Amino acid sequence: MDRTAAGDLVLLLSEDGKRFLIRLNPEVDLQTHRGVLPHQKLIGLPYGSRVETHLGTPFMLFRPSLRDLLLQTKRRTQIMYPKDIGYVLLRLSVRPGGTVLEAGTGSGALTTALAWVVGEEGKVYSYDRREEMQALARRNLQRLGLEHRVEFKVRDLAEGFDERDMEAVFLDLPNPEDYLEPARTALAPGGQFGALVPTANQVSRLLDRLPQHRFAAPEVCEILLRFYKPVAERLRPEDRMVAHTGYLIFARPTSP
Amino acid sequence: MDRTAAGDLVLLLSEDGKRFLIRLNPEVDLQTHRGVLPHQKLIGLPYGSRVETHLGTPFMLFRPSLRDLLLQTKRRTQIMYPKDIGYVLLRLSVRPGGTVLEAGTGSGALTTALAWVVGEEGKVYSYDRREEMQALARRNLQRLGLEHRVEFKVRDLAEGFDERDMEAVFLDLPNPEDYLEPARTALAPGGQFGALVPTANQVSRLLDRLPQHRFAAPEVCEILLRFYKPVAERLRPEDRMVAHTGYLIFARPTSP
Amino acid sequence: MDRTAAGDLVLLLSEDGKRFLIRLNPEVDLQTHRGVLPHQKLIGLPYGSRVETHLGTPFMLFRPSLRDLLLQTKRRTQIMYPKDIGYVLLRLSVRPGGTVLEAGTGSGALTTALAWVVGEEGKVYSYDRREEMQALARRNLQRLGLEHRVEFKVRDLAEGFDERDMEAVFLDLPNPEDYLEPARTALAPGGQFGALVPTANQVSRLLDRLPQHRFAAPEVCEILLRFYKPVAERLRPEDRMVAHTGYLIFARPTSP
Amino acid sequence: MDRTAAGDLVLLLSEDGKRFLIRLNPEVDLQTHRGVLPHQKLIGLPYGSRVETHLGTPFMLFRPSLRDLLLQTKRRTQIMYPKDIGYVLLRLSVRPGGTVLEAGTGSGALTTALAWVVGEEGKVYSYDRREEMQALARRNLQRLGLEHRVEFKVRDLAEGFDERDMEAVFLDLPNPEDYLEPARTALAPGGQFGALVPTANQVSRLLDRLPQHRFAAPEVCEILLRFYKPVAERLRPEDRMVAHTGYLIFARPTSP
Repeated sequence: MDRTAAGDLVLLLSEDGKRFLIRLNPEVDLQTHRGVLPHQKLIGLPYGSRVETHLGTPFMLFRPSLRDLLLQTKRRTQIMYPKDIGYVLLRLSVRPGGTVLEAGTGSGALTTALAWVVGEEGKVYSYDRREEMQALARRNLQRLGLEHRVEFKVRDLAEGFDERDMEAVFLDLPNPEDYLEPARTALAPGGQFGALVPTANQVSRLLDRLPQHRFAAPEVCEILLRFYKPVAERLRPEDRMVAHTGYLIFARPTSP
Repeated sequence: MDRTAAGDLVLLLSEDGKRFLIRLNPEVDLQTHRGVLPHQKLIGLPYGSRVETHLGTPFMLFRPSLRDLLLQTKRRTQIMYPKDIGYVLLRLSVRPGGTVLEAGTGSGALTTALAWVVGEEGKVYSYDRREEMQALARRNLQRLGLEHRVEFKVRDLAEGFDERDMEAVFLDLPNPEDYLEPARTALAPGGQFGALVPTANQVSRLLDRLPQHRFAAPEVCEILLRFYKPVAERLRPEDRMVAHTGYLIFARPTSP
Repeated sequence: MDRTAAGDLVLLLSEDGKRFLIRLNPEVDLQTHRGVLPHQKLIGLPYGSRVETHLGTPFMLFRPSLRDLLLQTKRRTQIMYPKDIGYVLLRLSVRPGGTVLEAGTGSGALTTALAWVVGEEGKVYSYDRREEMQALARRNLQRLGLEHRVEFKVRDLAEGFDERDMEAVFLDLPNPEDYLEPARTALAPGGQFGALVPTANQVSRLLDRLPQHRFAAPEVCEILLRFYKPVAERLRPEDRMVAHTGYLIFARPTSP
Repeated sequence: MDRTAAGDLVLLLSEDGKRFLIRLNPEVDLQTHRGVLPHQKLIGLPYGSRVETHLGTPFMLFRPSLRDLLLQTKRRTQIMYPKDIGYVLLRLSVRPGGTVLEAGTGSGALTTALAWVVGEEGKVYSYDRREEMQALARRNLQRLGLEHRVEFKVRDLAEGFDERDMEAVFLDLPNPEDYLEPARTALAPGGQFGALVPTANQVSRLLDRLPQHRFAAPEVCEILLRFYKPVAERLRPEDRMVAHTGYLIFARPTSP
């Protein structure tokens, strides 16, 4: 954990908040908005070092947090936000060695977090019917060295899921209410179900359909994250914030 | 995951939202506010079953989520809330096999979540100077079978921490600014630092002191969780919510 | 404004936050939870004085703000909250000398604020089909000396409104979408329309129907008010807050 | 209220949300981002009419609400937001015929709202030490025909206020704690005091000083306004929102 090595994924942070997430490769130069940083100069430094571009612009060299990795997900779709993902992980009880199923994969932000927490012993099953989306998500996971923890499946969800006894199933789809039966079938009786939808109308449709697919104890919530300007003498919230990403819905499978 | 067995930790949920978290023991009876439920009746049932007390009051029998476990932490102090814990886990990049240090232990809610995610291969070091608090936290962890993942230490923090190269350090103390030097010393250069404090004045004091202890890139945020009444035809937020638990502060160690 | 007189409406505030709104009458005694305060002792004092019950419990004697008056509305129904009312007054452009129509009257909290702002030259028309509700609202307004600014009408709204060319119309009803035509008819072409509903489903129904009744430029919002503990050394939000009162919808009448 | 006339202040709203607030003058043309609209074409139309630029871009012609007027305040400083102003009006109990003092004037948004509510019989006293700011505020009020309700004073506040027995005093200054004595002197014993400050540190400083200047019963709050996309079938909050404008502090004068 002390010094960077070739092959490490590192975060470069400028004083004005610009972020670069790169894998160190002695043959590559990073082109920033404020000058060039040859990776070679970054290799072998202690984490937390201050470095300068050829123009003298300072950057801090940090080990990325999981939140950094999620924020840097290369995306073609709206990705799930860390604020939501953190809560989803708790609420779905994702654990090292666990098995989790998600649909759709999207750009793979939630996939990344799930793979992170299930660890080497666990498994994530990730479905999407859009082949190009999964290819993108796969590349995102590869970049983080987490791809082998995920089984990607390109599939029209109407065909159902192959897995059974999943500890958790999460649907990030426009119409999760249409896939409750496959979700219920894939889920262990003691498992946890969750979904994310952006509109109140979708929440209503999903709530309406949960009981007929043997789901009970529904919960609906939204999570707001408000950042502050980190200045000791003038502490105040940032001027603007993300006001909405989606509504989170959770439910528990019932047995007859 | 299918059927309950003696020794399982299960959640009983009443229609009016009452919750009981119990470890199944064939010789014990659960006394609810609405009648008695002998554990014996609950053993061997599929998760998701509906059961009734001797007065006919129905309960649902579920496998508890990590959030359920956290909410049922037996407490003598204010515990950290799941909404905050979920985000802290992401931001501190807690991972299976990882090593994390926290102070103070308190009633052990964050300890539980940290132990959950580091898994069998990881380790949590948890400091508190109040012996009776740690005893409570230890019992909370024991109850969940997670105690062996935690090393509890009763210690006046002024004496510093024994550990080095921790992947993350979290301070949940009234005056975290007084323990930044031991925190910095225990942390790996590539590690993550976090703290929770309830007042804005404490945030200011902590921000003020971070740089002199070689911490940079501070972030301050608060997380709001708003629940909705889960009724399809009348979707609306609950009338009241938790408005504040604490401010979260994160920072990264720097190297000279 | 300096000293209290018989007939004045005054606010008594205890150190633990209990509030009494009373009209001073030399022949009456106020029975508090902490002893008796004869009004006679309160008459002729400067506002801002400290007084004591016969048990020695201190109270502060203040002139009530409009917010105090609204909070003390005697109610049989949920009343509109000051946070929402303040914004509604702005958004509806209520002004001294203006004319405003509202339905339903409810317990009269919004009615009070409308009557306050239209002043002696303006007029509020307030409809409700429940006679006993209007009687309560009328008593609330009488108590504040504002009743003569309001014309109360007990009416099944299906019969429509008598007024025309109203500067603003506000509907606080379970089904405002059913009364858009009478609202449009009562409203001046340059007037402002508003409504409050508690559920997302009602918002959708109202939005859906606005265009066919010649309303355009809809706006939907919600207002959150978060109080802080007013302690200089330990500034922090209150632990809990009102999470939801209702969604506010505004629209503007169109002309063919 | 029915039809526009020369000299009217009108709001033009495009389908993509662009707003123009103009005073109709038959000799002027409005240059929009989507073509020209001669005022002459807008005069004599019913409010709520649809008009088109010479390029065929449609605009709706509305009577502006007070909120529209506030949002269109020409500014050199951050202005107070309608969400805060609405609550301040209630909390300060501003009324037709009332007298209110504010410092500093800034660009005049709060001044506008105060002048609106005190009406022809009331008076607003507005202090600022920056002559050019007051000139701007004065022009903003002139444009709305409200200037005669306001007495502007360019003054170093250290010299105190001329007025006595004000029903309300509001301070929108970086250091309101330094002007509590003049504020207390200007205020009637039964009056209301308020202030807006952007940082938590300022709130603490103000709270700390209130008691020594004979203010009691302090209240601190913040108001969050969240807009929704007004689409019946896809109801959801806007993606982003204003996260912070300022903290509101209120207090009441005490008498010895």
